Amino acid sequence: NSQSQRMIWLLEELDIEYNLVKYKRIDGRAPPELAKIHQLGKSPLLVTADGRPVIETSAIVSYLLQTYDPAGKFATDDSLREEMLNSFAGSSLGPVNGVEMFLEMLPKHSPWPVSSLMRTVHRMVQKNYTTGEFVKAMRFLDSELGDNAWFNGGNMGKSDVMLSWPLDMIVQRGWVDLEGDWPRLAAWRKRILQSDTWKRGMEKGNGYDLNAF
Amino acid sequence: NSQSQRMIWLLEELDIEYNLVKYKRIDGRAPPELAKIHQLGKSPLLVTADGRPVIETSAIVSYLLQTYDPAGKFATDDSLREEMLNSFAGSSLGPVNGVEMFLEMLPKHSPWPVSSLMRTVHRMVQKNYTTGEFVKAMRFLDSELGDNAWFNGGNMGKSDVMLSWPLDMIVQRGWVDLEGDWPRLAAWRKRILQSDTWKRGMEKGNGYDLNAF
Repeated sequence: NSQSQRMIWLLEELDIEYNLVKYKRIDGRAPPELAKIHQLGKSPLLVTADGRPVIETSAIVSYLLQTYDPAGKFATDDSLREEMLNSFAGSSLGPVNGVEMFLEMLPKHSPWPVSSLMRTVHRMVQKNYTTGEFVKAMRFLDSELGDNAWFNGGNMGKSDVMLSWPLDMIVQRGWVDLEGDWPRLAAWRKRILQSDTWKRGMEKGNGYDLNAF
Repeated sequence: NSQSQRMIWLLEELDIEYNLVKYKRIDGRAPPELAKIHQLGKSPLLVTADGRPVIETSAIVSYLLQTYDPAGKFATDDSLREEMLNSFAGSSLGPVNGVEMFLEMLPKHSPWPVSSLMRTVHRMVQKNYTTGEFVKAMRFLDSELGDNAWFNGGNMGKSDVMLSWPLDMIVQRGWVDLEGDWPRLAAWRKRILQSDTWKRGMEKGNGYDLNAF
């Protein structure tokens, strides 16, 4: 139930051999063993063939594409746009998802009647912030995707990998009705979920229920 | 009082001509005029010499360095590490800052006795999450900086620009005692704040009080 699932997807797309080591969360957090590989102790974490630990999804994707895609199957023809989409996914949309998720968790972890108050706080922040941010984000992403199959154009690329996690989160937790309101984004997402590489990744992973936390 | 201040710093470091257009927030949010330049309507926003709007700080920095640093004064000799630090600043540390700031704002915007309850929630989340995340982040950044003047090594680079904003936020809002606990990080920050380029940028900007929101 982790953003690491998209790394397995990319590894399957690259069709390379890899060792997948799965860690189970303890009380919802990464287990201490991960810190033996890198002090930040978070997943995803790639250890390269020559033993270098690579943190941060964006860096892992760059490393994998530079190393294992010499033919440039996943290359972009506009690296500035790719970086805009990459940063938007992680630094702009990511924190909005974080706030919305946090607000959903607060009432669940509070006793009544505090839980009821937390739900009121949640609705207020949605009204003044997150709902509007989601609409702006979807409008932007829809215009960036346009009628292409992928954000990267005719072939999937780094931007597609980076955007898949925040959009899965948004759809699975019901924050946006992608089917109803953004059919092109919904079709893009279906393209991923129905691909053989995604399905193979799902068989190897540890489940992908983003409502589990 | 914006992360855009670091963009002015970089422009001053590059020593190029630029047009600075300042926008004032309305009720703490970006004004609608910004959306005329790019639909997301957020600052910083760079319009290139040939009229292309560039969003996202990370992309703006890359564009500026690729275009206006042909001699590679700010170049890195380890682009994978640079991307790890860049993504860490925006996608990992950024959201922790976001949650901590959000929790500080909640009691301020709540009537008593809700405000008192919100302070309790804040202390609980600090205890279980943000305080530990800040310690881990500072330990990691301290080890990455080591005894170098800059995260980029002997000369400042993209990673320094990207890390300056989250660290200014953390220090100005008092979430970490950098002077007391992380003297190397404090010296790095002082190196920026005392530079002529930072000072020139501060004169041109709109203030940099990160406690203002």
